[in-house]
Amino acid sequence: MSQSEDTKQKLREICRIAARVFYEKGYDGASMQEIATAVGLTKAGLYHHIGSKDHLLYEIMNYGMDILQETVLEKVKSIADPREKLRQTIIGHIDLIVRARDQEITVILHENRSLKGALHKKINARKREYIHYLEDLISKVQAQHGGKSLLEPRTAAFALLGIINWLYQWYQPEGPVKEAELAQAYADFFFRGLLGSA
Amino acid sequence: MSQSEDTKQKLREICRIAARVFYEKGYDGASMQEIATAVGLTKAGLYHHIGSKDHLLYEIMNYGMDILQETVLEKVKSIADPREKLRQTIIGHIDLIVRARDQEITVILHENRSLKGALHKKINARKREYIHYLEDLISKVQAQHGGKSLLEPRTAAFALLGIINWLYQWYQPEGPVKEAELAQAYADFFFRGLLGSA
Repeated sequence: MSQSEDTKQKLREICRIAARVFYEKGYDGASMQEIATAVGLTKAGLYHHIGSKDHLLYEIMNYGMDILQETVLEKVKSIADPREKLRQTIIGHIDLIVRARDQEITVILHENRSLKGALHKKINARKREYIHYLEDLISKVQAQHGGKSLLEPRTAAFALLGIINWLYQWYQPEGPVKEAELAQAYADFFFRGLLGSA
Repeated sequence: MSQSEDTKQKLREICRIAARVFYEKGYDGASMQEIATAVGLTKAGLYHHIGSKDHLLYEIMNYGMDILQETVLEKVKSIADPREKLRQTIIGHIDLIVRARDQEITVILHENRSLKGALHKKINARKREYIHYLEDLISKVQAQHGGKSLLEPRTAAFALLGIINWLYQWYQPEGPVKEAELAQAYADFFFRGLLGSA
């Protein structure tokens, strides 16, 4: 990236605020004027920073993938054992989804119908990269464990993503289920379903 | 329901077509005129049938829950064994999600931000009823099986819903994963994760 750190931080701030507006009003329902007001810029200033409404949505999704990369994937990079690496990825990803701070961004990441053409393809390529990373880890874990697997790595990866990404539909940080226990329990559940042992 | 069968069928036809328009353009992006044209009614005719745009969205969601009730829950009603009943519910629900016919309706069912107030509450009550049904079956299966469970019935029910509802994000009927195998494999995976045996 040739962006300066300042420009990057400004863009991220815009993304966070715009994500909240999109989350509340929907992509089509939110006007650029409303977003500019929320961010504290003129409409012209907003366009200067992000180019177009489409591009803003793209930047929000891209930011969502950056957060996954920076807060989860970078941290498990040095773990050699595939099983431990997968476990820490699951726990990190759940942690990311359930903490409230960037929830709007996570939700918007999965509303991919609003983004079209080349930008849609770019985001999908990043998502696919993560799915391949999970598939690869799962297949290594299966090979290491031996025995019969109930699911192909790809089908297992999507089951895992379903469990994790569905959290935003129901999980409440103030509710009776504590975040750390939930992440451990889901990781155990996934490994037991996959391998027959947790 | 005091609706005649004719009115009900007409309403369902409107729901199916409108769901496709909402799916393509988003709830805010789709105009009542566009929906009327797609259905083959005048705008006044459409309003006569469904009252308002909000109410149309509600009817689509309600129809989505009706389909679940009619094609899945009614069919497993007579199964006495909780484990078999849960297995057939899982298989039926997966079947419902992956067959293409009503996919738009399924997707819209989970975009609950667009619906507000009393209508939102009514749909949420129907969804909650289904979640309680799953929780109840899961807790019976756990009791029957004995042994230590990794997940509380509620957390397990949401893991299951995540796996199933995420299918619309990735599953392609023409792809290499066959529907019947997928449903069996996911049911086995869920039971093994839950109980330690598939």
